[in-house]
Amino acid sequence: MRRAVTLAARGTGSTSPNPVVGCVILDAAGEPAGEGYHQRAGGPHAEIHALRAAGERARGGTALVTLEPCDHTGRTGPCTGALIDAGIARVVYAVADPHDEAAGGAATLAAAGIEVERGLLAAEAEEVNLPWLTSVRRRRPFVRWKYAATLDGRTAAADGTSRWISSPASRADVHRLRAEADAVIVGSGTARADDPQLAVRHPDLLDTLGAGLRQPLRVVVDSNASAVRPGARVLDGSAPTLVAVAEDADAAHLEGLVPVVRLPRAPGGRGLSIPMLLRTLYEREVRSVLLEGGATLAGAFVAARSVDQVVGYLAPALLGAGPAVLADAGIGTITDALRLDVTGVDRLGPDLRITAVPGRPAPAAAPAPATPAVPASEEN
Amino acid sequence: MRRAVTLAARGTGSTSPNPVVGCVILDAAGEPAGEGYHQRAGGPHAEIHALRAAGERARGGTALVTLEPCDHTGRTGPCTGALIDAGIARVVYAVADPHDEAAGGAATLAAAGIEVERGLLAAEAEEVNLPWLTSVRRRRPFVRWKYAATLDGRTAAADGTSRWISSPASRADVHRLRAEADAVIVGSGTARADDPQLAVRHPDLLDTLGAGLRQPLRVVVDSNASAVRPGARVLDGSAPTLVAVAEDADAAHLEGLVPVVRLPRAPGGRGLSIPMLLRTLYEREVRSVLLEGGATLAGAFVAARSVDQVVGYLAPALLGAGPAVLADAGIGTITDALRLDVTGVDRLGPDLRITAVPGRPAPAAAPAPATPAVPASEEN
Repeated sequence: MRRAVTLAARGTGSTSPNPVVGCVILDAAGEPAGEGYHQRAGGPHAEIHALRAAGERARGGTALVTLEPCDHTGRTGPCTGALIDAGIARVVYAVADPHDEAAGGAATLAAAGIEVERGLLAAEAEEVNLPWLTSVRRRRPFVRWKYAATLDGRTAAADGTSRWISSPASRADVHRLRAEADAVIVGSGTARADDPQLAVRHPDLLDTLGAGLRQPLRVVVDSNASAVRPGARVLDGSAPTLVAVAEDADAAHLEGLVPVVRLPRAPGGRGLSIPMLLRTLYEREVRSVLLEGGATLAGAFVAARSVDQVVGYLAPALLGAGPAVLADAGIGTITDALRLDVTGVDRLGPDLRITAVPGRPAPAAAPAPATPAVPASEEN
Repeated sequence: MRRAVTLAARGTGSTSPNPVVGCVILDAAGEPAGEGYHQRAGGPHAEIHALRAAGERARGGTALVTLEPCDHTGRTGPCTGALIDAGIARVVYAVADPHDEAAGGAATLAAAGIEVERGLLAAEAEEVNLPWLTSVRRRRPFVRWKYAATLDGRTAAADGTSRWISSPASRADVHRLRAEADAVIVGSGTARADDPQLAVRHPDLLDTLGAGLRQPLRVVVDSNASAVRPGARVLDGSAPTLVAVAEDADAAHLEGLVPVVRLPRAPGGRGLSIPMLLRTLYEREVRSVLLEGGATLAGAFVAARSVDQVVGYLAPALLGAGPAVLADAGIGTITDALRLDVTGVDRLGPDLRITAVPGRPAPAAAPAPATPAVPASEEN
């Protein structure tokens, strides 16, 4: 199954709106007979690749697959049928398919007399499919918020300069995150200040991914239709672009230049409704987004509790002044802080990359501290 | 020598104003014959402890010592003489003594016919003695700046609440840092807002250190003599306290209550002169300080380039508002950022502890980025 998870990961960034799936077929003697992974939407599923590779050796064998085999006929036939036809005796899958349409695969297999087991390496298989599983469960895209800041939480110096806050290794990693996402989102402040191109164009990635590279949809949240002007780099045609504006915004200057979607404003009038933005993107088959900035838009996403993963690039530098990484998220007091669990800490050149997901219970629900002699105020 | 470094570390926090030193004696056959470390100022040096343990077996043997043996008679006799008298044939030391008064030990040993080597495990031996070595080299105390903040760099929420920003494990670790320091410093803002006690009182530490625990000097930088009032917890007598005020401040209310030192104001008038503050502490035999806050005082230390180590406790939480961890450090543009090298990343409960030291060369001097296709502006 570990091999199947590794295989699944190879599809990361190219299977959307489908999940990544890996499959290993063992023959009746328990020897590896074939393997495969889902490479791109519309192409064969992992099980089909693996069954083809195994050929007749699949008969009486075991299929190890990271996700419950599908039971429906979409662009390809159901995998359950293919497994049954190949004479597989046992199917072990890691994670159940949460998608109503496709679910039921396990039941179909069992009804055909196949021994079915679930849960092997479930955590690893969940992790590799986190964006897809999140999007199916929440019926909106998985949102990964990426930021780069100094140790003291600044994204730029007092004069606005930010060159080389993060290292080349961190910047290359951001291009990888872009390549994995269906869409990249920035706010009007970032669009105005940086005129970003937002395309995947890191030479290493272009080499590695080659023809498999899909440029993510570039989304600019430009509530008042004032940031994206003709000539902006996001309009350069290197990737598709969508500009989200408020229902009452004057976007005449964008007509014919770029697709524009009109969305209701957020309650209180600051920016657009984040749930509506995400629903619109989901309807366009966007299953994962990389939220790149700036602080205001990130604050709106946090306020809407619509951040599923945080990836922070921390540069070992101190500024003492300059814009903060996250602006008003509607959090006024410490007990309302968005608590996260750190899931990874990595070194990227001189920088640290911290990955975290929401989920830690509120401190009020946490067990009493083990150190009663320390007063309640912050370690004084 | 690795054993000697481990031994040296046992003295951390109790040898000031002396260094920590570890020593292992091998007999003439190369077998361990005795070991020791410097336990407290005024007590025997590491070499003396080790020689006593080795007894006659020291004759013809080797002394492995983390720091060049001293050659002067202070509160104890010179170690060089003791090594010579014991008949030691070879002395291997890791780090040269940078202290004028004591230096020359290696030359004395060599003149007595002892084989002398230097540099074995120098990096590790430097690290364990970092505070002392820094203080001797700079003729001011070693300054460790500690902060606790959320991932987005906030030390409290918008309403000032900060309870449980960091975890019990992190708070316990701060008490360990206090126990290692000769002095703990806070600014007037922290003194006023939190009325901290600033004593080492974590039960685990009290158990471990027992009688070896020395409470650090509590220093409040209270430029205008307006923050420390009678009844403040720093005046509770649980540890010595020093209040630093400006030369022109009215500190009549502190007379007879607490020692007060008068210092010139910093150029520009914001706060006190940090170099003068550190000189004053150095003259009082303070060799290491833990700078605990707040953001304004930390900014003044960074501006004076007087931070030798940064220890950041990062809580995996987001606030989006609230005070920043570091205030004005006189840095206006990105090329003036204080660049650091990360020397350690550790998990403390849910938190991350990031340790860093100044020293990374300015980005202008760094090699050209390996990714020329990425534009110069921050990864857009």
